[in-house]
Amino acid sequence: MKIYFAGSIRGGRKNSGIYAQLIDFLKKFGEVLTCHIGDSNVRNSEKQFTEKEIHDRDIKWLSEADVVIAEVSTPSLGVGYEIGRAVEAGKPILCLYNSHADFELSALIGGSESLNVINYDHISETFSEIEKFLNSRELRAEG
Amino acid sequence: MKIYFAGSIRGGRKNSGIYAQLIDFLKKFGEVLTCHIGDSNVRNSEKQFTEKEIHDRDIKWLSEADVVIAEVSTPSLGVGYEIGRAVEAGKPILCLYNSHADFELSALIGGSESLNVINYDHISETFSEIEKFLNSRELRAEG
Repeated sequence: MKIYFAGSIRGGRKNSGIYAQLIDFLKKFGEVLTCHIGDSNVRNSEKQFTEKEIHDRDIKWLSEADVVIAEVSTPSLGVGYEIGRAVEAGKPILCLYNSHADFELSALIGGSESLNVINYDHISETFSEIEKFLNSRELRAEG
Repeated sequence: MKIYFAGSIRGGRKNSGIYAQLIDFLKKFGEVLTCHIGDSNVRNSEKQFTEKEIHDRDIKWLSEADVVIAEVSTPSLGVGYEIGRAVEAGKPILCLYNSHADFELSALIGGSESLNVINYDHISETFSEIEKFLNSRELRAEG
């Protein structure tokens, strides 16, 4: 299973530790196409690419992905853009939102019936829900 | 011409004055479906709606719009989501980014060939470019 993990880069890296934990967990279930999101040095390592190269690489990965998991506690144009494109492409999407985040979740994410949203206090609470979500997709893909 | 203006609400209201100026300018060219984005009281006035009602209203407006104009100086999941869905729907999109913004523009916005991005120092600099963009769409729609 190919998993596209979405998390904020330029919108703010406050939750980068949580992204790294999530990516480690997701690796048990398949290939995480966007491992770099959890890298504490991602801003520097992306400087070797042009903006177009980053965009085209990410959109190629998004189109290849079987599922999208997005951490949405930090406002981010990129994460919103990826979710919007994935909704239009009919991808299964799971969003994770920290109830103690500095920003209230966008109504366009929280109010969309195309998205599954989990509110959490601690990231480990989301693991069983993520597993359930991924297993249901895996079975559907095999069926 | 129906214009969908996108600007941050829950991601932060630092640029709400600029949104109001842009909306006033855009009204010369057609119907701005999302006038409330410039309203200083938007957070309170939206409390009368459920999250689903806000999402469904905005996505209906987005589907009806002839063009999308997005102010992208504030990271925002909602604005990113709207741009992502509009790209997939093939809408003409113009993004406006303040070169002095607190956050660097997402590579998914700056690196997309489906988007037109204008960098500005002062919002009034964008007006002639917006006019050119809207007039080209108007002519194309009539042609």
